[in-house]
Amino acid sequence: MIRSVHKERIKRCIGLMRKENLDVLLLAKPSNMFYLTGDGRLCSFAMITQQGIVALGVPKTDIEDVQKTASFDHIMGFDDEIGMIHAIAHYFKEFGILKGSVGLEYTFLTQSMMSMFTHPHGKPEGVQSMDCTPIMSSLRIVKDEEEIDRISEAALVAQEGIAAAIKVLRPGITESRVAAEAEYAMRHAGADEFWRTYVSSGPRTNIAHGLPTQRKIQKGDLVMIDIHPIVNGYSADMCRTVIVGSATTEQKHAYEHFLTAQQATIEAIRAEVGMVDLEKIFHGTLKKNGHEKHIFGPPIHGVGIEFEEAPLPAGHAFFHGEKEPGSLQAGTVLAVGNCGIYTGPWGVRIEDTVLVTGDGYEILTNFPRKLSFD
Amino acid sequence: MIRSVHKERIKRCIGLMRKENLDVLLLAKPSNMFYLTGDGRLCSFAMITQQGIVALGVPKTDIEDVQKTASFDHIMGFDDEIGMIHAIAHYFKEFGILKGSVGLEYTFLTQSMMSMFTHPHGKPEGVQSMDCTPIMSSLRIVKDEEEIDRISEAALVAQEGIAAAIKVLRPGITESRVAAEAEYAMRHAGADEFWRTYVSSGPRTNIAHGLPTQRKIQKGDLVMIDIHPIVNGYSADMCRTVIVGSATTEQKHAYEHFLTAQQATIEAIRAEVGMVDLEKIFHGTLKKNGHEKHIFGPPIHGVGIEFEEAPLPAGHAFFHGEKEPGSLQAGTVLAVGNCGIYTGPWGVRIEDTVLVTGDGYEILTNFPRKLSFD
Repeated sequence: MIRSVHKERIKRCIGLMRKENLDVLLLAKPSNMFYLTGDGRLCSFAMITQQGIVALGVPKTDIEDVQKTASFDHIMGFDDEIGMIHAIAHYFKEFGILKGSVGLEYTFLTQSMMSMFTHPHGKPEGVQSMDCTPIMSSLRIVKDEEEIDRISEAALVAQEGIAAAIKVLRPGITESRVAAEAEYAMRHAGADEFWRTYVSSGPRTNIAHGLPTQRKIQKGDLVMIDIHPIVNGYSADMCRTVIVGSATTEQKHAYEHFLTAQQATIEAIRAEVGMVDLEKIFHGTLKKNGHEKHIFGPPIHGVGIEFEEAPLPAGHAFFHGEKEPGSLQAGTVLAVGNCGIYTGPWGVRIEDTVLVTGDGYEILTNFPRKLSFD
Repeated sequence: MIRSVHKERIKRCIGLMRKENLDVLLLAKPSNMFYLTGDGRLCSFAMITQQGIVALGVPKTDIEDVQKTASFDHIMGFDDEIGMIHAIAHYFKEFGILKGSVGLEYTFLTQSMMSMFTHPHGKPEGVQSMDCTPIMSSLRIVKDEEEIDRISEAALVAQEGIAAAIKVLRPGITESRVAAEAEYAMRHAGADEFWRTYVSSGPRTNIAHGLPTQRKIQKGDLVMIDIHPIVNGYSADMCRTVIVGSATTEQKHAYEHFLTAQQATIEAIRAEVGMVDLEKIFHGTLKKNGHEKHIFGPPIHGVGIEFEEAPLPAGHAFFHGEKEPGSLQAGTVLAVGNCGIYTGPWGVRIEDTVLVTGDGYEILTNFPRKLSFD
């Protein structure tokens, strides 16, 4: 049975497939399968034909579980990788697709998974494969009301996580212990899961991806906490940087400058504005305040089922298999503040999840933005 | 500077590269970079030439942090994806590699990352790419003393995690809350991080990858807890299945049969035994006890920097870009019990991390194996 929410999504999907001349999608990325069918899990696949038929292949152990949540017309269980290839072959035959084109997720499939999904025992020789990443991104880029509710819930859970992490900060505690508090609080507040937690301190706040370590936080350290809970399948993305002890004047200024840039960018958000324009405001404000050399990485990206998804900024987008983002539409959700200030000895980052509305924006993560919580 | 532990590994690596006629490796998988250089992080790369030169490319923000831990001859920072491609081009030129072959990680790189790593502005046209997964796996498959110490530490941390999770089990608690306890305890016991925690209950114990949900545990439920802490860069893999309330006779028998199969397999472990032989013992014991239809998935895999790595069982290995595993060697670490019994309404799994020694084995995760902890 196909539930109405998925019927509507599949209808839009078919429209895009027709435009791109795609006969069938063969999806394996959990987030994409979840969006179109209501169930996304590892080691599974979903095929969607241009006629709107939805066919699933799952580990044989999972059939009953998937039947409870997923929208689909056909389901097959398999024993192993060979069984998976046979299931794909079966569906190609059943749907009479012997030539034409199949859409695969080039930004998700590794080279070896690709070999498996295009194995001659599965995909007919006459069927050409092409990347369906841009199709899936443009389908998912505008969120409906229920999706926005779920992201809002995740945003509240993120606030609980940040609050718990900040509360435990003190000299001597390890970065990993701070992460423990954030994660524990997020699960208690209703997270099913979370994406990898970043906690970095002192000189490590200057690095791009600060995964937690056993480093003990010292008095005078900045601590950067970046978290991404998943609630009902949807994510939020939030970061705060906090001082343990007293901040130097330089740190205070950097914090204020970053916050000014972030807030100026958020205030410019509304439908019809371009991602590139927002990025210009963000980086322009930082440059104006003397941080030209401290900029690294794209400051804005989309949030949804994944904590980092389309729209991605132009340069980044290209290498992630995405098209350059057009103007924003109401219903898109952004994380603003994804890049920080990197001064060398330390860095600062403040990131919030923000909904694009018709005439403006709504900030979904409203935890206080300040350097000191003493 | 190249530290002695990495000098030895790079020497072995060069030996394998010569055999395969590989002029240079271009690695991006954190676990592989960590093994050969002491530092593995996202959005970075390591190039290793057949002459033993180690060149790193990292986000420009990360240079100082990498310099503290990594063994390398050259390091370059980059601003973005284009900078990364230019850094790759720079090294190819510097090392005078204009033809020949480059080893890439086909089991790690997505199709779009592959396009980036083989971009004509980076890789010279005359250089052919090939998969270096089997080389990296055979390098990492036998652990040295320090690696075994780290895996043993991770195993102790896993025991703390399992103990905390079991302690909190009661009707009404959600799967996610149980995961929270395991994760919190692992971080408190010294984990830097952990791979995704699996907690499933009741009918969900029958599925292959039981990620935690908001399902409330009920009296009479089996609960499966599968955890993978990371300590000093090394992992352990451990699973216990526990009853909340009283188990049925059928559940008790299934548990005993699975434990018998797991223990029989572990007892057969020693250097020179084949993975296929162990798998036969595992599945043979289950079949003998009436569980032929309840078997799914490979029962044994390697453990090291990753919680699931080579050696992989033959069928699985092929689709994961690995060569079929040969006979076991002393110093390899295995997870035994990776597959469970899947009866339909519920499943059972017991998994332990086990070191292969010259004349036998050593179980590293020694938490009690029993169905009830009341």
